[in-house]
Amino acid sequence: MSFQYQDVEQAYKRIEEYVRKTPLEESFYLGGKGRSYFFKLESFQRAKSFKIRGALSKMTTLSDEERARGVATVSSGNHGSSVSYAASLLDIENAKIIVPKPTPKSKIDKIEYFGGEALLMGGDYDEAHALGMAYIEEHGLTYIDAYDTDPLVYAGQGTIGIEILVQNPDIDTIIVPIGGGGLITGIAVAAKALKPSIRIVGVQTEACPALIDSYRDGVLYAEYPGKPSLCDALVGGAGRLSYEMAKDYVDEFLTVSEETVAKAVSFMAKDEKYIAEAGSCTTVAAVMDHADAIGGTNIALVISGANIDGKLLTELLDRY
Amino acid sequence: MSFQYQDVEQAYKRIEEYVRKTPLEESFYLGGKGRSYFFKLESFQRAKSFKIRGALSKMTTLSDEERARGVATVSSGNHGSSVSYAASLLDIENAKIIVPKPTPKSKIDKIEYFGGEALLMGGDYDEAHALGMAYIEEHGLTYIDAYDTDPLVYAGQGTIGIEILVQNPDIDTIIVPIGGGGLITGIAVAAKALKPSIRIVGVQTEACPALIDSYRDGVLYAEYPGKPSLCDALVGGAGRLSYEMAKDYVDEFLTVSEETVAKAVSFMAKDEKYIAEAGSCTTVAAVMDHADAIGGTNIALVISGANIDGKLLTELLDRY
Repeated sequence: MSFQYQDVEQAYKRIEEYVRKTPLEESFYLGGKGRSYFFKLESFQRAKSFKIRGALSKMTTLSDEERARGVATVSSGNHGSSVSYAASLLDIENAKIIVPKPTPKSKIDKIEYFGGEALLMGGDYDEAHALGMAYIEEHGLTYIDAYDTDPLVYAGQGTIGIEILVQNPDIDTIIVPIGGGGLITGIAVAAKALKPSIRIVGVQTEACPALIDSYRDGVLYAEYPGKPSLCDALVGGAGRLSYEMAKDYVDEFLTVSEETVAKAVSFMAKDEKYIAEAGSCTTVAAVMDHADAIGGTNIALVISGANIDGKLLTELLDRY
Repeated sequence: MSFQYQDVEQAYKRIEEYVRKTPLEESFYLGGKGRSYFFKLESFQRAKSFKIRGALSKMTTLSDEERARGVATVSSGNHGSSVSYAASLLDIENAKIIVPKPTPKSKIDKIEYFGGEALLMGGDYDEAHALGMAYIEEHGLTYIDAYDTDPLVYAGQGTIGIEILVQNPDIDTIIVPIGGGGLITGIAVAAKALKPSIRIVGVQTEACPALIDSYRDGVLYAEYPGKPSLCDALVGGAGRLSYEMAKDYVDEFLTVSEETVAKAVSFMAKDEKYIAEAGSCTTVAAVMDHADAIGGTNIALVISGANIDGKLLTELLDRY
């Protein structure tokens, strides 16, 4: 189980017509001392998250029969709405997004807005996952993995690495948020193939350093009982494929505090004028606290999504 | 003094390589009852405002001698930073942006970030303008008009109309904020030429309905002492060229309350996940209060810029 640059390149050919080539925009306020920082704004991606790249990469490889039977996943977050949206874009009529029963109506509305059907199962994510996987098997649907094992999904996320280096070949460092690890592994495989000297820096929140602790302890934490975190898109365990591959491609792993992440969300909205979800702002927080450890001259920060709760956003803008 | 579609088309050829083709993104939350709304996100334009289109349209017509002498304008807002940025893009080394002495440092920093030089003159805008125009003449600089009389600037703003109809030919209604009137006049001339059936709706804040009152009273209010307004980009008088032309192209003029504008800023950030300046949110406010008067099936809202003060943004998110 692995993938390489050619897989990312092929994924890009399949998904390029569907995804937005998101801007790589220089920061107004970060930088100086010979360093320039650039935001790769996947927060402007369709459905406001990079996740649609991986979902499309997988779903564009389905046979006619698989398409006719339909697709499904288990996620109330960015991955769930992205699978729903990707199904619409590809005219796959049957798309079931399985979510835990306590999921807020706003998230269900977003999933269904894009055309998929939300199915409520179980009292929490683990129950939803168990019931959902049984449902998916029973109905012959194709499961769309979020970050665990599917190289096609990883290759889709990696297309961001190609775009960054096309948009600015001088980028020498890329900072990427880590949840399950699919995003950073994909980007790292692509970017290192195109530019072997490039440095890849991965950032986790201190509240949930699942991948970092997995490497430290030499054991994959597929589940990780983290502390409460603003970074709802990053909590949980590490992916199996990222655990296998990321260590060979990532030059530096860092953690950032929840407080710096909170400041970074506010900074992005008030100063840079971008709504970025807390998980994405781990990259900004990393620059705020660890600019010298990160180094580099032309540094790209992957801003992976914009889906922050409005109430949380207001609280953070009030506080910082 | 006037311009027509061909001028907009030519402007687009001159500026296309420099401007961002901003997304036309469907709203998640507006719509229903057979109506779909699309945000034309000039808030993602370079320097975070549509103003750079007009500035580039003018500045790409300068002779080598004019370029060597340099350009200037009088503006501490979006137009000022856009002229500064446009000069950098076009390798025009001498760009003077004249601002009143009390201009906040953050605005001066933004102007100078893009490479132009801010010159502080006079105690308020009127003084800065009088002193600035004398300076510009004395130094043989080319004045870059913001919205008053220059058809090249108007034609540049009109390129947004072309983009909207290329991005979605089904758009039947375009809602545009009105300050001086350059943006709506440009867009209306372009869009009506491409699609004569299209409806153009212009929106002013109740606090400063300069163009609407000019038409009502049959006299151009080149200065307009409005009430306090959140919409700092829209206050002031109407442009001479827009006063002459807009009435023949705009199907409906509306005003919106400051309170609805405030709600619209909060709605855009919390729900739609876009930072939009208050003046831009007049279009969203118009949909909130006047959807039936606006009508249409596929309606584009021009979100003209993202430059809202961080403190004001926080206040509005707190309040609504």
